[in-house]
Amino acid sequence: MLDVALVGTGGMTPLPDRWLASVLLRWAGRLILFDCGEGTQISLRRLGWGIKAVDPILISHLHGDHVLGLAGLLLSQANAERREPVHIFGPPGLQRWLEAMRVHVPYLPFAIGIHELRDGATYDLADGVTLTAAEASHSAPCIAYRLDTTRAREFLPNQARALGIPVQQWSQLQRGHSVQLQDRTISPDEVLGPDRPGLSVCLIGDTRPSRRLAELARGVDLLVCEGTYGADTDLDRAIERKHMTFREAATLARDAQAKQLLLTHFSAGMADPAAYAPNAAEVFPNTIVGKDHLSLSLNYAD
Amino acid sequence: MLDVALVGTGGMTPLPDRWLASVLLRWAGRLILFDCGEGTQISLRRLGWGIKAVDPILISHLHGDHVLGLAGLLLSQANAERREPVHIFGPPGLQRWLEAMRVHVPYLPFAIGIHELRDGATYDLADGVTLTAAEASHSAPCIAYRLDTTRAREFLPNQARALGIPVQQWSQLQRGHSVQLQDRTISPDEVLGPDRPGLSVCLIGDTRPSRRLAELARGVDLLVCEGTYGADTDLDRAIERKHMTFREAATLARDAQAKQLLLTHFSAGMADPAAYAPNAAEVFPNTIVGKDHLSLSLNYAD
Repeated sequence: MLDVALVGTGGMTPLPDRWLASVLLRWAGRLILFDCGEGTQISLRRLGWGIKAVDPILISHLHGDHVLGLAGLLLSQANAERREPVHIFGPPGLQRWLEAMRVHVPYLPFAIGIHELRDGATYDLADGVTLTAAEASHSAPCIAYRLDTTRAREFLPNQARALGIPVQQWSQLQRGHSVQLQDRTISPDEVLGPDRPGLSVCLIGDTRPSRRLAELARGVDLLVCEGTYGADTDLDRAIERKHMTFREAATLARDAQAKQLLLTHFSAGMADPAAYAPNAAEVFPNTIVGKDHLSLSLNYAD
Repeated sequence: MLDVALVGTGGMTPLPDRWLASVLLRWAGRLILFDCGEGTQISLRRLGWGIKAVDPILISHLHGDHVLGLAGLLLSQANAERREPVHIFGPPGLQRWLEAMRVHVPYLPFAIGIHELRDGATYDLADGVTLTAAEASHSAPCIAYRLDTTRAREFLPNQARALGIPVQQWSQLQRGHSVQLQDRTISPDEVLGPDRPGLSVCLIGDTRPSRRLAELARGVDLLVCEGTYGADTDLDRAIERKHMTFREAATLARDAQAKQLLLTHFSAGMADPAAYAPNAAEVFPNTIVGKDHLSLSLNYAD
């Protein structure tokens, strides 16, 4: 099960009743954070999924509303006695940004892994999660992320029994290792079903829509995507400021054949984002207009 | 009238129900901010006194919980179309800290005035406010501030009439300028009462108590002071971490002959600071245990 929570849904400015846009994923005890504006650690506390275990942190771009909460979060992880490294991914410029941050936060009891990503970069995170990066189209270098979990192939017990493999040796095969019987070697392929898809999430921060992003999000179980403006009449503003309207984000989800769309990163001027839900649903019915601390769980279809 | 609000009352870590310790003063339309931890701009929005007009910003010291909200606040002032400079005061090291911040916030449409202060420094702010700095005793260089407003001398109309000064020329005398009558020159001293005290506030961030701080706070109308630990039994911890207990802060207020004490900067472990009020009140009865957004107004005694 992959859990997803919206830590905040606000764009540009943190509001008293809306934290800055940030997403937390929980997978196999690991907490993966996407973006970290001012106040993210406070909202994380309220959410209650934990702070110490947050790693890695994926940064879309280096505008303040997406990254100024980083120092405070790391300090809180230090206060929580974290000692393991924290890995931070982001666009080119991340290293320089973090070096300046270390002037503000000179003492941390753990290492920071810095990973500047370019379009097409992939990275194997631990626990069977693969990260893929694509360049978005914003007013600053901006990275969109896709995360895919790998799913173990099904173990076929009837097959194993038919081959006469003692039950004690099944787990070895399940882990992908061959076992030696008296007369022959059994390979995992003989007792494992075909490859099967894991779960997939695509995280898209500030951007205009693009073919590249639709490609990144191809067929994902969940697309979490910026929808800065709900009204279609704000299209000019969206173009000018390099953001998307709800309708554009829904079109991206449709083009990508995503299974579900979760909208976030709402303009501070939009008091009730849910009121604009129809503008997205007309294009892509399976749309949720996010709100702070909304969470959902992704499960295998079978 | 000088208004004082607690923007937050938390020490070290921002909590969902307690913003980091910060104080806002309002005097003659000017907003003076003391300390700016993560989330301060959000709490300022909730308080509703304004953000654009905040200037100067007084920083006690460069630990994250007192200063990491600075970049976000300045960005919000920029978004609010501020164009006038913002002056930031703080301990030695402030300039280097702000230079690193400019890597994170490269574009601001106004100038930043940087003022590193040492013990005993004074500074005339506009609108008749004088700032005096004293060095506190914390684990990092830390500045405590005293602000004094100047008060105009009383104009004595009976005196002016007796001297035969036309009413049209009274305002010139009130502003401290001499006026020329036919036969002689009238100096302001002839129609103004004696000097009279203005209002005074002392702002003390993280520190152990000291004679120097009692001297700084001598006779102030209001002492806003850290009281990290309510329980007397936390004295050892207060000494170790360079903070104060409620009782110590109250003793400082008594030694300084302050008129009123407002406690803030509470340890995150202290769920109900008000429960420890007696520990302060036994020493200094006129103590208020602060809470977020508590505000009060100081007025001239007469």
